[in-house]
Amino acid sequence: MSHARYYHAGCPVCVEAERSLLPLLDTGKVDVEVVHLGQQPERVAEAEQAGVQSVPALVVDGQVLHLNFGATLAALK
Amino acid sequence: MSHARYYHAGCPVCVEAERSLLPLLDTGKVDVEVVHLGQQPERVAEAEQAGVQSVPALVVDGQVLHLNFGATLAALK
Repeated sequence: MSHARYYHAGCPVCVEAERSLLPLLDTGKVDVEVVHLGQQPERVAEAEQAGVQSVPALVVDGQVLHLNFGATLAALK
Repeated sequence: MSHARYYHAGCPVCVEAERSLLPLLDTGKVDVEVVHLGQQPERVAEAEQAGVQSVPALVVDGQVLHLNFGATLAALK
């Protein structure tokens, strides 16, 4: 069983990512805890220790996936 | 059934995201196609049309999730 934490802050990108991604996870393989850092600022330190640098982020078994915009696709052309 | 495309370019972040996330998806709810844009540059235009701005990205039923580093968590403090 994998353990995942979805850290977010209620922003539109966060909500979109949550609605798109979390329902597709296999609840037989992973349990997901949703943490709203805007409502639970005391858990920001915990998120930082896990390696979270931005939200939304999904931490799966200690690995951090930042869900967001990064580098441009133009670099691949 | 949802349809997802995982666009990546073979970079370390791409591989990490693929290994962490894709195995947790419920294959009864979503089918995932993996597209390596470094090996299939002719599909960059398709990715752009879908709204992909960076890789790795997961497009789920037309919604784009960019998996990457974005804004800083410091803004939440």
